[in-house]
Amino acid sequence: MMKLHGYYRSSTSYRLRIALELKGLDYEYVPVNLLTSEQKGQAFTSRNPFGSVPLLEADGRDRAQSMAQLEWLDEAYPENPLLPADVEDRYTARELAYAIATELHAPLNLPVLKYLANEYGKSQDEIGVWYRHWLARTLEPLEARLAQLGTGDFLFDKPGFFEVCLLPQVYNAQRFAFDFSAMPHITRIEQACLALPAFQRAHPDNQIDNPERK
Amino acid sequence: MMKLHGYYRSSTSYRLRIALELKGLDYEYVPVNLLTSEQKGQAFTSRNPFGSVPLLEADGRDRAQSMAQLEWLDEAYPENPLLPADVEDRYTARELAYAIATELHAPLNLPVLKYLANEYGKSQDEIGVWYRHWLARTLEPLEARLAQLGTGDFLFDKPGFFEVCLLPQVYNAQRFAFDFSAMPHITRIEQACLALPAFQRAHPDNQIDNPERK
Repeated sequence: MMKLHGYYRSSTSYRLRIALELKGLDYEYVPVNLLTSEQKGQAFTSRNPFGSVPLLEADGRDRAQSMAQLEWLDEAYPENPLLPADVEDRYTARELAYAIATELHAPLNLPVLKYLANEYGKSQDEIGVWYRHWLARTLEPLEARLAQLGTGDFLFDKPGFFEVCLLPQVYNAQRFAFDFSAMPHITRIEQACLALPAFQRAHPDNQIDNPERK
Repeated sequence: MMKLHGYYRSSTSYRLRIALELKGLDYEYVPVNLLTSEQKGQAFTSRNPFGSVPLLEADGRDRAQSMAQLEWLDEAYPENPLLPADVEDRYTARELAYAIATELHAPLNLPVLKYLANEYGKSQDEIGVWYRHWLARTLEPLEARLAQLGTGDFLFDKPGFFEVCLLPQVYNAQRFAFDFSAMPHITRIEQACLALPAFQRAHPDNQIDNPERK
């Protein structure tokens, strides 16, 4: 069985949980405690030199980058594809998913936020301003793109590659009090996804390493 | 013919120039002046709401995200593939390429550097410290991964998806005086690529919008 080494509220770990649920692949979830920097210890970095989660242990190999893991899952396990079949639709799904993965992930990720606090002495309020600035810069055009495409409950007929990347970003944005009131498309897609059991099982609230888990 | 709207030293534009050259696809290069914020003007954002380069105008559509463009090029134009054929090799190429695209692109991109200067009052020297910090954090494990893989002149038998992302990152790192002396694998791959006409034609030095072009 695959093992997903992750952290409950890491957005990239959350991506993989959704993807594995949508594809109907069994996996064991192995928590890695980012608060104690477990991912920087020798036991972990010997398997993943990048020292990051998620680490996907699958088919005899330790896999280290979430977007490469998603692309690989769809190629190695073609059933229940995350990407649509049509080449142009695949482009559309990737354009929106990679906007999140390449523009938003790194500036909002824990290492950069820690750098702002420790090296620049920024307060939590100032870090919140940073966080929402970059969110707006990518989510506003993403909302505009969804409007151009005339999107319904999902980007296509069912959730896939794009929604796998969107939901974790929205979850993290809510933790930083980002205002989604002018983003009806993103909000509608988020709500439609959260109504589905696959997204509920993958949600940070329901992970064994969430200390506030009910 | 395809049109690539880009800027000579934008690393994502440089990725696309290399990819189009390696695939042997004819294209017209249309400069977009980032220094005058041409990409934020209405004429450009009406075509690309993200207000970013490169914009690839191809097969009747404006395409906005470089990694989605690369994946699309390989699917729509299968000749001279950037990704290898084997599923495991494809994973390897993507793991290394997406490490650059998702971890390095955004924190080192012009908008973040401008934010550090304008909002935080950071000097050019301080921005250099920031730049090299994030570079080291991803290039060191990337070098370790290349050592694990026993890489030769290229990741596989010829340059492709990974080299398309690596070369622009190395070029930009050199502008910020990053020290590559402890990275023999990255350096060897860079040198092997720069010896090839496709990489020479794609290089920032040889673009019509480079004011220092000879």
